[in-house]
Amino acid sequence: MKKEITIVGAGLVGSLLSIYLAKRGHKVRIYERRGDMRRAKVEAGRSINLALSDRGLLALEKIGLADEIRKIAIPMHGRFIHNLDGTTAFQPYGKEGQYINAVSRGELNKKLMDLAGEEGIEIFFHEKCLHINWKENEVGFINTKNGDTTDVKSDIIFGADGAFSAARLQYQLNHDRFDYHQFYIDCGYKELTIPAGPDGEFLLEKNALHIWPRKEYMLIALPNPDGSFTCTLFFPFSGEQSFENLTTEEKVTTFFEKTFPDIVPLIPDLNKQFFHNPVSSLVTVKCFPWIREDKFALIGDAAHAIVPFFGQGMNCGFEDCRILDELIGQHGDDWKMILQKYQTLRKPDGDAIADMAINNFTEMRDKTADPKFLLQKKIEARLHEKYPDKWIPAYSQVTFSPHIRYSEALERGQKQESIMQEVMKLVGIETKWDEEELLGSIIDKI
Amino acid sequence: MKKEITIVGAGLVGSLLSIYLAKRGHKVRIYERRGDMRRAKVEAGRSINLALSDRGLLALEKIGLADEIRKIAIPMHGRFIHNLDGTTAFQPYGKEGQYINAVSRGELNKKLMDLAGEEGIEIFFHEKCLHINWKENEVGFINTKNGDTTDVKSDIIFGADGAFSAARLQYQLNHDRFDYHQFYIDCGYKELTIPAGPDGEFLLEKNALHIWPRKEYMLIALPNPDGSFTCTLFFPFSGEQSFENLTTEEKVTTFFEKTFPDIVPLIPDLNKQFFHNPVSSLVTVKCFPWIREDKFALIGDAAHAIVPFFGQGMNCGFEDCRILDELIGQHGDDWKMILQKYQTLRKPDGDAIADMAINNFTEMRDKTADPKFLLQKKIEARLHEKYPDKWIPAYSQVTFSPHIRYSEALERGQKQESIMQEVMKLVGIETKWDEEELLGSIIDKI
Repeated sequence: MKKEITIVGAGLVGSLLSIYLAKRGHKVRIYERRGDMRRAKVEAGRSINLALSDRGLLALEKIGLADEIRKIAIPMHGRFIHNLDGTTAFQPYGKEGQYINAVSRGELNKKLMDLAGEEGIEIFFHEKCLHINWKENEVGFINTKNGDTTDVKSDIIFGADGAFSAARLQYQLNHDRFDYHQFYIDCGYKELTIPAGPDGEFLLEKNALHIWPRKEYMLIALPNPDGSFTCTLFFPFSGEQSFENLTTEEKVTTFFEKTFPDIVPLIPDLNKQFFHNPVSSLVTVKCFPWIREDKFALIGDAAHAIVPFFGQGMNCGFEDCRILDELIGQHGDDWKMILQKYQTLRKPDGDAIADMAINNFTEMRDKTADPKFLLQKKIEARLHEKYPDKWIPAYSQVTFSPHIRYSEALERGQKQESIMQEVMKLVGIETKWDEEELLGSIIDKI
Repeated sequence: MKKEITIVGAGLVGSLLSIYLAKRGHKVRIYERRGDMRRAKVEAGRSINLALSDRGLLALEKIGLADEIRKIAIPMHGRFIHNLDGTTAFQPYGKEGQYINAVSRGELNKKLMDLAGEEGIEIFFHEKCLHINWKENEVGFINTKNGDTTDVKSDIIFGADGAFSAARLQYQLNHDRFDYHQFYIDCGYKELTIPAGPDGEFLLEKNALHIWPRKEYMLIALPNPDGSFTCTLFFPFSGEQSFENLTTEEKVTTFFEKTFPDIVPLIPDLNKQFFHNPVSSLVTVKCFPWIREDKFALIGDAAHAIVPFFGQGMNCGFEDCRILDELIGQHGDDWKMILQKYQTLRKPDGDAIADMAINNFTEMRDKTADPKFLLQKKIEARLHEKYPDKWIPAYSQVTFSPHIRYSEALERGQKQESIMQEVMKLVGIETKWDEEELLGSIIDKI
């Protein structure tokens, strides 16, 4: 039976969800707080490019969009590490031919909106969510341009409006027994741009995600199709080395020359950018329940905002949509069952990727500079090559194995990590790591 | 220097705080969402009586109110356990002469408001907090009776408006990087009244806190000065044995007759009460930071709402006020230092009592029915008697030792518990527990 469905938020997840639902024959309307990004510039301060990997691609594939997105994506085959002493190292993300994709958030979102339009989905812009009463199937909006208010009645309401979801907040305020956790890490981030060289030349290796690991903080850079790179400095808010203390052009210049010397010549207007661009914070949100009866559900960042260090925020949100769609396929009209199973399946996975994303910050900013860590990754890659089904590195499980659940990846990853901790203590591991017998003995411990 | 101070909330903690601040010479105004409880009835559904113990009393003592409150309080010397088989047991809370006090929330609050009035503090009623901008020292209210809005400017704003604090919410919405956790336990509660007998007779032992422990749930009862008892049923929201399933008078009667047979004759209108009184939920709130510069602070439940199973919610909030006052005594005019130290001292203590309160639910509803647990408590009481400084049972640390911090009580309690776990495994412990040598060997493990 055709349902009337209201989605709050026309971001990446809201747009993709609308397409999935429309293809199932439902009547979908989206209400978006911002203006139409296809007509105006994207707001500053949000991450400009994202890493799309196999989970996200699988969800796009199901609606026939993966190939088109691949055209505007730049493959990144591994981490390109820039050490403080000027040396560099390349660490492949997976096996030969496995890579993640740098894509523009804006371009991807616009494409999804266009596709939603083709499916007959209406998107109402400048509509701010004011209240939600899921019991009465009601959600209210105010138009921020003309002040008009609208009360929308529909069979199902989805809150897909991101980490700072207004839909979730209204639900939290008006409905009892909602568990809600939000917490911030001590680092914020600031984006900086390395412009393209002459004739759109890439001034760093194009097909990699660049990392300048500096223990307590790091700089990363992702390529854009025009030859530029978007850099992000993840850096403490306060303390000796912190945003709070980088108060003058001189301090900024000194800091970059000392800490990221190879970056300085690549960003001629470093100080201008540094003092113009905002510092943003990094929140994790966990909440429960995500759903109420057959009437209301949170999805994407609104249900499980995570930090960006595993590059999985969008991928996880897209996977939510794919799983939900599979459940609609299985349970047809039984929306109570669909939403219940959606929550039962996705809540532990959302929790798992949230925790893995936090952990990956330490790995990226600190361990990637450690030769011992790089050796461990090399051993794990070798194990994966030799025993492809028995040993899959945690990163590959999350990034390249979309049919392994996040919660399973977390568990298997932890087990493998504890085995590797012991292996790395072996005397002479640096030389004998590739020996058949040793590799076999590691696999026996699984 | 005299400060202008705005307090949001005229509940127990807001009222007490105002008195402490006024006595230090500051100009204090309180804005309260509800009407004046001295002129109207207290809202239904809130707990009617509370257990006031030494931390709360110490805070009241400092403003000379302890003796007056003791007059309207009923001492409870221990837990009076009602087992399912009809047997009962009495477990003293502490040493001879140590007890907690049943007091009426409403009476205590009214007294504190009166005392605030005597100190020249103005309380504005029906004022709902609409927004807070601590950077601009501004807090806005709407009068729910006449719709007038007021913007109040002052040097310092305190949010003392309870577990569902509007002040905290506005601060969460408008200010970045606020960690916030709220979570509910699976049980809700419903209050029921055992009326007094003829001539105001107490129909249960007066000077005790009564518990009917039934593993997954429990009923408790506290005495009121008029001879009645306020019972609280802590019971799962859903599942086989749950509020959700007690849908008819027949089911309620059957359930009570089977589970709490001695209660049934004491509440003649059981069904009327059961279907009239609401089911309320039990939330824990942890958040951080509690303060901003020298301008804003959360206090009491607004900073650290806890479940009621240790009887410490009010006591902890009162202790917040006492500690803050001591810090004012030490640092005088340096409010940045005062608030910083207040947070540094109280945040770990708030977290500790929140966790202990959750744990105590299991102890009350399940373990108090277990003879082995009662023996353990008896051994610990004996240890305390013999070595009063070396072994203080966790309950006594929290309840009767106001100079032991909650965080310290948690740590010491956990250590003692792990020692006792071993002791309880000893063969023949039931007979030899009182032997000198054994008791000495336990103390040696501390």
